[in-house]
Amino acid sequence: MFVSMKFNGRTLELIDQRKLPEEEIWHRFEDLESIAQAIETMVVRGAPAIAAAALFGLALESRKYHGENAHGIWSQFQESCFASMERLCKTRPTAVNLFNVMGDLKKLLKAQEGNIALEKIVDIIAHKAHHYFSFDLQRNKQIGTLGAQYISAHARRFRSDGNLKKLGILTHCNTGSLATGGYGTALGIVRSLYLSEQLEMLYVDETRPWLQGARLTAFEMSKEGIPFKLIADSAAAFAMSKGFVDAVVVGADRIAANGDTANKIGTYQLALAAAYHGIGFFVAASFDTIDSALDSGNEIHIEERNPDELRTLGGITTSPKGISVWNPSFDVTPHQLVTAIVTERGIAVPPFGHSFSEFGKR
Amino acid sequence: MFVSMKFNGRTLELIDQRKLPEEEIWHRFEDLESIAQAIETMVVRGAPAIAAAALFGLALESRKYHGENAHGIWSQFQESCFASMERLCKTRPTAVNLFNVMGDLKKLLKAQEGNIALEKIVDIIAHKAHHYFSFDLQRNKQIGTLGAQYISAHARRFRSDGNLKKLGILTHCNTGSLATGGYGTALGIVRSLYLSEQLEMLYVDETRPWLQGARLTAFEMSKEGIPFKLIADSAAAFAMSKGFVDAVVVGADRIAANGDTANKIGTYQLALAAAYHGIGFFVAASFDTIDSALDSGNEIHIEERNPDELRTLGGITTSPKGISVWNPSFDVTPHQLVTAIVTERGIAVPPFGHSFSEFGKR
Repeated sequence: MFVSMKFNGRTLELIDQRKLPEEEIWHRFEDLESIAQAIETMVVRGAPAIAAAALFGLALESRKYHGENAHGIWSQFQESCFASMERLCKTRPTAVNLFNVMGDLKKLLKAQEGNIALEKIVDIIAHKAHHYFSFDLQRNKQIGTLGAQYISAHARRFRSDGNLKKLGILTHCNTGSLATGGYGTALGIVRSLYLSEQLEMLYVDETRPWLQGARLTAFEMSKEGIPFKLIADSAAAFAMSKGFVDAVVVGADRIAANGDTANKIGTYQLALAAAYHGIGFFVAASFDTIDSALDSGNEIHIEERNPDELRTLGGITTSPKGISVWNPSFDVTPHQLVTAIVTERGIAVPPFGHSFSEFGKR
Repeated sequence: MFVSMKFNGRTLELIDQRKLPEEEIWHRFEDLESIAQAIETMVVRGAPAIAAAALFGLALESRKYHGENAHGIWSQFQESCFASMERLCKTRPTAVNLFNVMGDLKKLLKAQEGNIALEKIVDIIAHKAHHYFSFDLQRNKQIGTLGAQYISAHARRFRSDGNLKKLGILTHCNTGSLATGGYGTALGIVRSLYLSEQLEMLYVDETRPWLQGARLTAFEMSKEGIPFKLIADSAAAFAMSKGFVDAVVVGADRIAANGDTANKIGTYQLALAAAYHGIGFFVAASFDTIDSALDSGNEIHIEERNPDELRTLGGITTSPKGISVWNPSFDVTPHQLVTAIVTERGIAVPPFGHSFSEFGKR
């Protein structure tokens, strides 16, 4: 399985996701600011992958204090860490995982303040970063297993000979190994369906403007021989009307306490089409994607990105110069349109707030 | 207003719509086969523009018989014309205008067989081609006027100061001067709304894979200073949820007797989103787009185009090599989702069959 980043304690390497699938270019980073810029410019993208890269960046930055042992500079260290966290949190406003891991680390630093040697806390930060990345892979496998079981039960259909049909799944954007610690969330479910021989065909939305589907999901599925067809974003509802799709499975960047889900622009439109056709609409996300501080999706800050993402493609101008553009990077799908939310702790069903509270606190 | 073709009796010039807006390149055609290929490769596109180009091609082809006067070669002439028509009808299968104008001409040729001099019938064909093109402009202006009145009444909203709000309109693909004899169908309505100072903002779907919205509609609107914003196809429903859109206006390539409408892929998805948000969904098309021979949209042949349209963009590969693609060029919107169909003969409302019969026969 393809990984999107490698950390050796001294450098972070990121595969340039803007260049895939044409070129597999790895960039090497040794400082936090360049990692923050790599997140902003989408060298690395995907909510869990962003959080992991940010943690690795913080680990690199705090390493400057390795070897220092004086209690006196704890405050200086802390100040520097907090500034670094602030910088990282400014990169992308919608995904919540980044804010969560930074918040957790901030609490830890405050609790440990001056109690342990700086050298030790620096090691703890590096350990946390490694752990987040490998834990994300584990929980995605759990999401895959739970989701595949649930969706196959939900969308089960019989063929005319009485045997079970395999499933047609539609997905949006890239929620795979490249976007996470590995295996993927929505694509984790797709992988689990494929491995349990329940996948007939994956329909992959190309996902304009950034083409995460055409470039990244297609890349991952091709590498593993998982059967898929690329479609235009606007062909999704028509594919549903043709009976090609038994379930829609997408990821999430932030989920409010009521189940409203922020995800890649176009997700809301898919949810509407799925509801009209009576097709299950499933969100797959790690439990820490749920932002219990938000009552509803109305409060989620939606990032609007550079208009040039729509004005051009790969350096080619695809519209008249300087035209006005509305380019929201995410949208919010109201919980009423969501069939179930698959997390590593279990499957949340409406009313989602109830399910979430059963899964415990983050 | 920009025109997409120029005919001088001896040559047809077409602006290359694949190159707009970057380059304004005109190609000159002197024979039917090269015009048929220009239709297939989308040098010219848009249902009425295709029909006009085909008629001009037939006029050029029949000109070979100019100067001939012998009754004896009528059968040869007719055979050649019918073969040319068959060739033209093979170019694009979904739009009905082409089939209609060819069918009309076939009837005319059969009726006149041997009755008049070949020279005369050759002139009649050229005249018919010219007439179709200029008549299309006229009827589009009528569609614009009727549609703007109807939609502004339907979507009328008051501002807090008691005055009328201007309208936010969303459209898909290109249905303007480039796609027709001029002015446009859905874009004709937009132009009329703009000219009567009722347009606040036009939202233009980029319309993958061919980007007719980003390239052609944006080009036309820019030239005339009509206010618009380009959006990703998948941002349409989110724009509706934000309250930006008061009505959706699209064109049509073929309309069945019950009102089911074949139009550019993505239209169906827009209609679903409009219905969910309680926003009017309007189809604008010349009366001859209605194919009364078809009971429903199920019978409409949907063209599937080259997978490379989705695999690449402007020569740049945007997906792994050789992947499987589903690339329908059109979809069918069921009549239940259509608020009204605006034709030059009047506004059809449900049940559409009733309205259509009131408009008379084609």
